[in-house]
Amino acid sequence: MNHNKEKLSGVFAPVVTPFEGDQPDLDALAFNLTKLRQTDLTGFLALGSNGEVKSLTDEERLLVLEVFAREKGDKVVMVGTGCESTKETIEKSHVAAQMGFDYVSLLTPHYHAKQMDGAALRRYYERVAEAVSVPVLLYNAPQFAGGVQIPPRTIVELAAHPNIVGIKDSSATGPGRFLAELDPEEDFSVLAGGINFFYASLHAGAVGGVLSLANVVPEACTEVYDLFMKGMYDRARELSAGLIRLNQFIAGAWGVAGVKAAMDLIGLRGGRPREPLMPVPTEGIAQIRQALVTEGFPVFSL
Amino acid sequence: MNHNKEKLSGVFAPVVTPFEGDQPDLDALAFNLTKLRQTDLTGFLALGSNGEVKSLTDEERLLVLEVFAREKGDKVVMVGTGCESTKETIEKSHVAAQMGFDYVSLLTPHYHAKQMDGAALRRYYERVAEAVSVPVLLYNAPQFAGGVQIPPRTIVELAAHPNIVGIKDSSATGPGRFLAELDPEEDFSVLAGGINFFYASLHAGAVGGVLSLANVVPEACTEVYDLFMKGMYDRARELSAGLIRLNQFIAGAWGVAGVKAAMDLIGLRGGRPREPLMPVPTEGIAQIRQALVTEGFPVFSL
Amino acid sequence: MNHNKEKLSGVFAPVVTPFEGDQPDLDALAFNLTKLRQTDLTGFLALGSNGEVKSLTDEERLLVLEVFAREKGDKVVMVGTGCESTKETIEKSHVAAQMGFDYVSLLTPHYHAKQMDGAALRRYYERVAEAVSVPVLLYNAPQFAGGVQIPPRTIVELAAHPNIVGIKDSSATGPGRFLAELDPEEDFSVLAGGINFFYASLHAGAVGGVLSLANVVPEACTEVYDLFMKGMYDRARELSAGLIRLNQFIAGAWGVAGVKAAMDLIGLRGGRPREPLMPVPTEGIAQIRQALVTEGFPVFSL
Amino acid sequence: MNHNKEKLSGVFAPVVTPFEGDQPDLDALAFNLTKLRQTDLTGFLALGSNGEVKSLTDEERLLVLEVFAREKGDKVVMVGTGCESTKETIEKSHVAAQMGFDYVSLLTPHYHAKQMDGAALRRYYERVAEAVSVPVLLYNAPQFAGGVQIPPRTIVELAAHPNIVGIKDSSATGPGRFLAELDPEEDFSVLAGGINFFYASLHAGAVGGVLSLANVVPEACTEVYDLFMKGMYDRARELSAGLIRLNQFIAGAWGVAGVKAAMDLIGLRGGRPREPLMPVPTEGIAQIRQALVTEGFPVFSL
Repeated sequence: MNHNKEKLSGVFAPVVTPFEGDQPDLDALAFNLTKLRQTDLTGFLALGSNGEVKSLTDEERLLVLEVFAREKGDKVVMVGTGCESTKETIEKSHVAAQMGFDYVSLLTPHYHAKQMDGAALRRYYERVAEAVSVPVLLYNAPQFAGGVQIPPRTIVELAAHPNIVGIKDSSATGPGRFLAELDPEEDFSVLAGGINFFYASLHAGAVGGVLSLANVVPEACTEVYDLFMKGMYDRARELSAGLIRLNQFIAGAWGVAGVKAAMDLIGLRGGRPREPLMPVPTEGIAQIRQALVTEGFPVFSL
Repeated sequence: MNHNKEKLSGVFAPVVTPFEGDQPDLDALAFNLTKLRQTDLTGFLALGSNGEVKSLTDEERLLVLEVFAREKGDKVVMVGTGCESTKETIEKSHVAAQMGFDYVSLLTPHYHAKQMDGAALRRYYERVAEAVSVPVLLYNAPQFAGGVQIPPRTIVELAAHPNIVGIKDSSATGPGRFLAELDPEEDFSVLAGGINFFYASLHAGAVGGVLSLANVVPEACTEVYDLFMKGMYDRARELSAGLIRLNQFIAGAWGVAGVKAAMDLIGLRGGRPREPLMPVPTEGIAQIRQALVTEGFPVFSL
Repeated sequence: MNHNKEKLSGVFAPVVTPFEGDQPDLDALAFNLTKLRQTDLTGFLALGSNGEVKSLTDEERLLVLEVFAREKGDKVVMVGTGCESTKETIEKSHVAAQMGFDYVSLLTPHYHAKQMDGAALRRYYERVAEAVSVPVLLYNAPQFAGGVQIPPRTIVELAAHPNIVGIKDSSATGPGRFLAELDPEEDFSVLAGGINFFYASLHAGAVGGVLSLANVVPEACTEVYDLFMKGMYDRARELSAGLIRLNQFIAGAWGVAGVKAAMDLIGLRGGRPREPLMPVPTEGIAQIRQALVTEGFPVFSL
Repeated sequence: MNHNKEKLSGVFAPVVTPFEGDQPDLDALAFNLTKLRQTDLTGFLALGSNGEVKSLTDEERLLVLEVFAREKGDKVVMVGTGCESTKETIEKSHVAAQMGFDYVSLLTPHYHAKQMDGAALRRYYERVAEAVSVPVLLYNAPQFAGGVQIPPRTIVELAAHPNIVGIKDSSATGPGRFLAELDPEEDFSVLAGGINFFYASLHAGAVGGVLSLANVVPEACTEVYDLFMKGMYDRARELSAGLIRLNQFIAGAWGVAGVKAAMDLIGLRGGRPREPLMPVPTEGIAQIRQALVTEGFPVFSL
């Protein structure tokens, strides 16, 4: 197994950004990272969708990255640096590289969605991959990108680039199709971007996952991966099914706000999302609490 | 394992309807069935999307079903009887039952898509399931149904109905989510409706698949299933990947017309689809031929 | 102005199909037609979406058409005869022609949506237009057709066909774009398929509309048209705005079921839609009643 | 007519941002503004979608605004300041206010599209409107906003806010529906965000338009408006139809890149868009040139 595949195998948490009033709560972030780094998580995604990256100013993003640099421990860190322009993506990726992070994860540009065909996306990713020293991960998430998807054919072409080493796929279709077209010898790793298809994707060839649920129940997420690696498939499927059920009440129902509310319940510091996102209402929190209990996770009693 | 799960496990071919001029070519259909029934396929779907059911008159549908009744051998047969009205769905399902077929498969009504919410769909399926003697399969295929999907919650509710015994899921999202919510003891079987996620779905709890590719390379499709059942996962994944690649050039690129063209190439009788569907152009046929050869399947030389 | 433009100018009602128990209520249909034919409506659309055409068997469609033939008075009648196959569309159009109806209105085929590109649709419409004696209207309604739209370029090409004489456009984008590309001298009429853009479309070059609201308040709909023709634009816009507001509570909120409920309130015979469509619940009926009163229409008191 | 309606009536150009190498070309922007301010345009939209706002850094946006402040002449200027977070939107709107611009135009937040329902959007717009001194325009453009739309009901509610004075609507559905629900006495102006429905929208109650084509042929765009105001409807419709045809070859085919290419052809300074957007290829430019000639506009000969 090549070096990047090794580094990218397992479970990553797309770490949330806590807020205190109208500022990022860097202490709370540090607290969460010190807890999460004690788990078997492979690493963290900083400044992802769950980190509310598009609601952070450039300055705030730097402050957040400094906390990651300080508190990451021995974890692998990928940083979301995708912007609408090639130029700004490169500049932000340079910063991530200079700060010593391991990978940049680049969501498809999508504001001018109609123009973002395979050729435009290919050119975009190749330009960035050539300009930056840090290895690049594609991030395919049409639900956050106005429906823009990287065509499977383009993924396969980009996989051949020496500085493009993987993809985080959160598309509903899952990675089945392009996994079949990838050369298994290629240094290109596929990470499932959602718990609903994480376990099944491992069987199809994915090496791991970036799971919002790993902010809440990291050990259960990594256990699915470990059971898979040990060939204990029945237990893996069962545990995965429990996490899928749990997730419906968290990110499935409420997005980032749900992840943060669940973190509060298990003793991490989630807090409110930044407006216009709204916190989970009281009855939603009760449902999350109930779902955690049902699936066997300890929650703080009030 | 209960009776229906046993009957529904494995691979079904959604059998195409050949045409001769502007009539269904019943001889060609019989020829195909005599070949397909000699394979390890579990059974057939008659009058499905690949059977161009919506392009057949009521009378033609009956003629097609008579061929199935005669030529099915010992295969399990499910019949597509879903119509826009509850009433007509029930009537067509009665006919299927009287002709001795095993299951009816009911695509979601969708012409009035905006009104087809979970409550309307639940009522529809329950009404039909109560009115007919033959067991009912849900068919969730938003790509054929104006985007209408059965909500996961509704699927779980319907799974509890004694005469609703399974679902064919062709949605892009795959069955991961509702598989996790289903009671494994329930008499409710999940069939994957596409090769792209067939193998991964088996690991998530599906019992089989309804695969258009099973019209073309039935033995390879059933081998994926057999390898899975024997726990030979590496070989299963590899074979599955080859079939996914192959499928891009067939149904992926051309829909039913591609399936029919590929059947012609391997010695079955596909022919032209009914207009306004058009046959695959010459260069597309060359690509299908090449893909069959690349993946190791024998094609007729011209 | 050529002959067809004259015949197609003004307002058409896409007449609903009443049911009594599980049968079409032909008496109620006749009753409605005798009332509607006394208005200034230009004509009727039989077997359209509001007529729940896809929920009617072939036999029932014939019975409905016979009522139209008998009760249409001097109104122009267009018949929805579009099916998934070119062949069946032609056969049903022949029947409409033989029964003496004026036009056939052909919704785009859409079950195999991915294959229904401009070329396929062009071929479909040309084949039908050449095969039938009755003049053809295109019907562009992506919301009923799995998202399939006739590309503007294809509409312009088809407009040149001598037996294709118009289009009913119910797409959200409205007819603005292709109206600009049509030759005004061409015998091709554009009808707006919704009250929301009916009045504005007249200014852009449409000759009329097919309005579900014309089942409920036909005189108000034709008055918008008459005021437009007389150049009384302020009053036309105001009346149109009132009808748009009203429509939100009827078809906007409930589809066909809303139209039928509103008909019951004003003394016509709507009744229940056919299942799986459900009737408007009591509180929805109260809102429709209130909206009718607010916009100045008489309702029956209970 | 109240003050804002007066200021917002007519045609606005959503001014493009030229680039020189990888920097904004402020001289070219100034050149374009000096030309455009000599026309009958009502004003400019700075930092809109056509200004490639999402591809500009915060610093670059300020540089662009300074050029507008200097070169706007007596034109009304609205500034696109909508960001994903309420907080950043307010901050950027404060800057626009301090620089003396007339309005801010706020695209719907949309990164967390699934959470952006009517309640979230209402809260977002009200928060901003209360926090800033400059009057607020809603900007409804699902094609740039991951499908997010402001529900008509929410628009009507927001129209009542004293500091929300209008909407730019670029949705395909057009403003017909909510125009009907708006109180005409309200200080709330509707601007059509596309040439395809600009003229028809004037008849439905819009007071003007923000038209990318106004970067290219401003006088023709304002003439449509003037002819409408004078009641010369036949000539207005004809001219509008010509502009709709022209636009297919410009923004319709190529987005911003097409607008910039057309500007080059008529003697303004468009240049290349910022990557990953690509310039119009040679054959596309030839088609734009031909379309300009066909519709009677002078182009520079090379």
